[in-house]
Amino acid sequence: TNIEMEESNQSLHKVLFIIFCSSLVFLMQAGFAMVCSGCVRKKNVQNTILKNFIDVLGSSIAFFFVGYSFAFGGDPEKTSFIGTTNFLLSEMDYNALGVDYAHWLFQFAFAATAATIVAGTLAERCQMRTYLMYSMLLTGFVYPVIVHNIWSPSGFLSISNQNPLFGVGMIDFAGSGVVHVTGGITALIATYMLGPRKGRFYDERGVKLETPEAFPGHSKSLQMLGTLLLWFGWFGFNAGSAVSVDADSNMNPVIIAKATVNTTLSASTSGIVALLFHLFLIERQTGEPVYKLSAAMNGALTGLASITGSCGFVEPWAAIVIGAISGLIYLGSERLLEILCLDDAVDAIPVHLCGGMWGVLAVGLFSSPRGLKNYFGDDDFNHYGWFYAWGQGSGDFTLMSCQLVGLLCILAWTALIMVPFFFTLYYFGMLRSDGLEELVGLDVSYHGYSNFQPSQGVSAQSLRKHY
Amino acid sequence: TNIEMEESNQSLHKVLFIIFCSSLVFLMQAGFAMVCSGCVRKKNVQNTILKNFIDVLGSSIAFFFVGYSFAFGGDPEKTSFIGTTNFLLSEMDYNALGVDYAHWLFQFAFAATAATIVAGTLAERCQMRTYLMYSMLLTGFVYPVIVHNIWSPSGFLSISNQNPLFGVGMIDFAGSGVVHVTGGITALIATYMLGPRKGRFYDERGVKLETPEAFPGHSKSLQMLGTLLLWFGWFGFNAGSAVSVDADSNMNPVIIAKATVNTTLSASTSGIVALLFHLFLIERQTGEPVYKLSAAMNGALTGLASITGSCGFVEPWAAIVIGAISGLIYLGSERLLEILCLDDAVDAIPVHLCGGMWGVLAVGLFSSPRGLKNYFGDDDFNHYGWFYAWGQGSGDFTLMSCQLVGLLCILAWTALIMVPFFFTLYYFGMLRSDGLEELVGLDVSYHGYSNFQPSQGVSAQSLRKHY
Amino acid sequence: TNIEMEESNQSLHKVLFIIFCSSLVFLMQAGFAMVCSGCVRKKNVQNTILKNFIDVLGSSIAFFFVGYSFAFGGDPEKTSFIGTTNFLLSEMDYNALGVDYAHWLFQFAFAATAATIVAGTLAERCQMRTYLMYSMLLTGFVYPVIVHNIWSPSGFLSISNQNPLFGVGMIDFAGSGVVHVTGGITALIATYMLGPRKGRFYDERGVKLETPEAFPGHSKSLQMLGTLLLWFGWFGFNAGSAVSVDADSNMNPVIIAKATVNTTLSASTSGIVALLFHLFLIERQTGEPVYKLSAAMNGALTGLASITGSCGFVEPWAAIVIGAISGLIYLGSERLLEILCLDDAVDAIPVHLCGGMWGVLAVGLFSSPRGLKNYFGDDDFNHYGWFYAWGQGSGDFTLMSCQLVGLLCILAWTALIMVPFFFTLYYFGMLRSDGLEELVGLDVSYHGYSNFQPSQGVSAQSLRKHY
Repeated sequence: TNIEMEESNQSLHKVLFIIFCSSLVFLMQAGFAMVCSGCVRKKNVQNTILKNFIDVLGSSIAFFFVGYSFAFGGDPEKTSFIGTTNFLLSEMDYNALGVDYAHWLFQFAFAATAATIVAGTLAERCQMRTYLMYSMLLTGFVYPVIVHNIWSPSGFLSISNQNPLFGVGMIDFAGSGVVHVTGGITALIATYMLGPRKGRFYDERGVKLETPEAFPGHSKSLQMLGTLLLWFGWFGFNAGSAVSVDADSNMNPVIIAKATVNTTLSASTSGIVALLFHLFLIERQTGEPVYKLSAAMNGALTGLASITGSCGFVEPWAAIVIGAISGLIYLGSERLLEILCLDDAVDAIPVHLCGGMWGVLAVGLFSSPRGLKNYFGDDDFNHYGWFYAWGQGSGDFTLMSCQLVGLLCILAWTALIMVPFFFTLYYFGMLRSDGLEELVGLDVSYHGYSNFQPSQGVSAQSLRKHY
Repeated sequence: TNIEMEESNQSLHKVLFIIFCSSLVFLMQAGFAMVCSGCVRKKNVQNTILKNFIDVLGSSIAFFFVGYSFAFGGDPEKTSFIGTTNFLLSEMDYNALGVDYAHWLFQFAFAATAATIVAGTLAERCQMRTYLMYSMLLTGFVYPVIVHNIWSPSGFLSISNQNPLFGVGMIDFAGSGVVHVTGGITALIATYMLGPRKGRFYDERGVKLETPEAFPGHSKSLQMLGTLLLWFGWFGFNAGSAVSVDADSNMNPVIIAKATVNTTLSASTSGIVALLFHLFLIERQTGEPVYKLSAAMNGALTGLASITGSCGFVEPWAAIVIGAISGLIYLGSERLLEILCLDDAVDAIPVHLCGGMWGVLAVGLFSSPRGLKNYFGDDDFNHYGWFYAWGQGSGDFTLMSCQLVGLLCILAWTALIMVPFFFTLYYFGMLRSDGLEELVGLDVSYHGYSNFQPSQGVSAQSLRKHY
Repeated sequence: TNIEMEESNQSLHKVLFIIFCSSLVFLMQAGFAMVCSGCVRKKNVQNTILKNFIDVLGSSIAFFFVGYSFAFGGDPEKTSFIGTTNFLLSEMDYNALGVDYAHWLFQFAFAATAATIVAGTLAERCQMRTYLMYSMLLTGFVYPVIVHNIWSPSGFLSISNQNPLFGVGMIDFAGSGVVHVTGGITALIATYMLGPRKGRFYDERGVKLETPEAFPGHSKSLQMLGTLLLWFGWFGFNAGSAVSVDADSNMNPVIIAKATVNTTLSASTSGIVALLFHLFLIERQTGEPVYKLSAAMNGALTGLASITGSCGFVEPWAAIVIGAISGLIYLGSERLLEILCLDDAVDAIPVHLCGGMWGVLAVGLFSSPRGLKNYFGDDDFNHYGWFYAWGQGSGDFTLMSCQLVGLLCILAWTALIMVPFFFTLYYFGMLRSDGLEELVGLDVSYHGYSNFQPSQGVSAQSLRKHY
């Protein structure tokens, strides 16, 4: 009975901690909504934040009916492409002492996060019913399949598979790849199909502008609030990912605590590198020092997305290095998108796609021997990050190979579904909102009224640019 | 000593978890403040949010001096109408290992919630000193008596009473009735006495308008933020209610985890049903699709208020059904209020009163056998939700009867105190602010200045309508 | 193994609870950012909130490289002025079961809080690069030294020193002195060197205004949100401070729970006293009732800063008294600053410096015998708060003496570094931004654009005053 009592205590601890973490991850939705709201013009605020909210509502329903089953409803002894049991949570069992219910909550919150990454990118020009369809498709099918293959024991890429890939499997601690790359690549596909906002890269005759128009968002305060809420939620996102749902496994406090420390360090470094390097570049070019808030904020978010994959088992100094590189990746990819005339209203692609990809690779480069041994609970585990392998003269590329395969699988699978999906919508004219609607703002046309009232006699030119 | 150690650990777990939950419930005050701020016109922002803040300040003081004692200061062996010990927390005991202090914090946060439900309804036209009086009365006396009778072992409606009503007692898990109906019925009484805002239903000559004027709030972003903060806080509200303060009872992780899952499902379903059904109705009538944000947001909040009573022991599919009906209840009751010319600036009556009433009844309809057996820790418990009883051919109405009696008691008791109270204020002219004050906004007249500055030459007509 | 299991469980509990608390303390940064944003004029919003964000980024890096080592890297057996080990977290040990990592996170969040107290005071007129330097200096050196001397066992003021001062040491439970006085006195020094905003106390010719210009902030909603986020975070701030990092010490649930109750009571009382006493004063002078929001909000924050030092071991009635006095201290010190022509854009000096100083002294006045015995785990501890000592006829001033010495040390040490630092910046013209920049707002000049667009033909006079 001592052992039973101990097991029941372990379950209780898990349930309480997962609920804490899930709540924080849930609050990231408020973070996304505030970032998106702050980044758009006043005439599109309602439209943008409703997309975030629909992601919450839709994903919980999609995840209840099918998503969770597709993700985790497989036989742990066998490898399968998709789960097929426990639809409508019909097989939840009180003997699991609540851990299964808590696990659903945590995983739902993750799914909602993956979906809502896309909301901001499409802001100010996308039809509403399209967004509803997209949201259900992603959280009900595309994302769960990725989760199944990487995080459930039945997945062929999973480290808990009985025969993991290359003897290791793809390691994605809290989802740099599973969540952020999935959301990010979807955002990239969608914005390519959708085209840029009117007047962002081209003038009204379709001639390319010499300098892209910037469209500054209507509230930096809300964007800052959103960024800090996201960071706050990320503590739950990363720490909660340390908890295994296996009934007989104990919680590892070292991984939990370390994850939060590395999360902080990577985000901070990335934010400050992006802020200062941007300052340096601009000052060299123009002589004027410009402290760009969005560089600091989105830089920090990129650092968060990139440490997500490895935060439980890299050393703090490595978190600093990963973060510093994230800051540069953010600046570079944000510039690249502009050159390619891809319009991303909230920089979700630099943050989540580029940050997430770097995060998946960083696992393969920086995972420390003592970190991984502790993570796998196996003192003989010997496939480390490539830099360590290199340092020891072995150059073992096994882990890095797993990461590369996993990353390609995520990109390929998401593209396989999302390219035809968005192309079909585009072809039938269901993707982009009407040109005039876009000019006067989507709030008036889709939501009945707008808090934004242009003064009398405002020109279309001015409407296009400033509000 | 093994048992002692275990007991002290249980106390520690309880304290830590209750503090987590209480913090979340406390943050609901920020949620209410942001919802209220977003829903009012710019000229009344300060006035509105100060009411929310006064609820926090006042309720903690009222709850310290008398409220907590009235609620829980009874002899658990005897039935009493009101508690009479532990005023000023003078009988808090270190031997309770902190559970009693934590319990106070949790219960205070609940009281503040009940009080602040009313703040938004009365927005834009209520005197400030009146609100102070109301807030102290509710949290110091009216609400504690309800808590005493339903949640303390000395209450005649309580399930932990030694001779519970009809052998069962009224089941209100986290307070659909105790908190939300109490706040909601008070809001209804108050808005009836106070009358609608100028220009909402009647023009300046007192002639009824053909279409009520809508008075859109000044910031949908803040309303969305508030809604998500409320949802976040609701995890603490519902999960924390699973924790018994009895020193010798263990925490039940199944109830805790299930409560959070059901909370999510009901809210999501309710929000999406309200959004889409409203879209369908409007599109049929006008041909224009209108995605109404407040339908989605307030729909979700109604789903939260209604699952509150039963989230620990209904099955997830039932949470979906309860939520779907909540969405319809929200739309219907919001429309009904308009027809009755009752002005509710933030829809607190549809959300909390109607949602809460439905929540109390839903306990009697949907509570599952395995859920209640687990909740009561008694495998022989056999008064289930009416639908289950029906399905088993017994048609046992015992539980439903308890719910109906409990609901009527809450409504009757609150009305008994609040009708004379608000009538007296009305009679002595202490209820409604001056007509001119209302026109220029309460911020200028009560708070010294306003962030809203009308442009020169604005007409009273325009002031009345737009700002 | 039973004992081992118990120890490992204790570590797990500590890690989970510290992470919860650290997350809340981290979210206080969002609170500070929203308070600061709400309190400044629209033209300076970006500049102000970037300072808050830089505090987060900079302090985590400074605390990683040197700050944490300076604070806690000492030999616990010896008294030292500053720590000298564990730079770059190089000596973190998995055998500590994560408690050391969690401790870093908690302490970093505290350092960021200390730094960001200053951000608001300097708003609307300070150069950006200067702020970066200040932030690193405070969190990397000045603050860690104070932490070392008061909270680490090697500190000469510490209660865990082997030979504590006067046999007791300075008691500062969660940092009324360590965090709030340090930040507050820095804010005072900085604002004195920097001078008031243009037009606040003097007109354009340098003639003192009869009545200071008020410069109301651009959003009371954001200020309210920030205040409630700070309060929410303070639960983590105060409750988390009850957790000792000693591996062999158990967590004391009484202290944790009591800390949260006292936190609530002091804040509420202080807020309501400030609101009502201000109302009374103004109504007597002008006949108009003015409910001043910032009095209620900043009053509550002062109550939070002042209960921070003693919340774990004073009785609830004492928390009420401490809070009531805090409310008066806030009103008085805010008035005094105006008389002295010291410009504090967010009232950080009244809240943190005056509230914090009162908090340090309140420990020496109100600490209850049973509270301190419980805190020290020593039934023979007999140096109580002075009022208790007085009541028992002993008049023992030992504890109060420790508090006074500690307070003077904090003030002296911070001034010793900060006065020359800010004077040097002032002397080389690196402190204050250009006069014209200040007039048009710092957002345009430092951050490239502003969300604030003055209408055409606005006069400098008007720009100075209203926006």
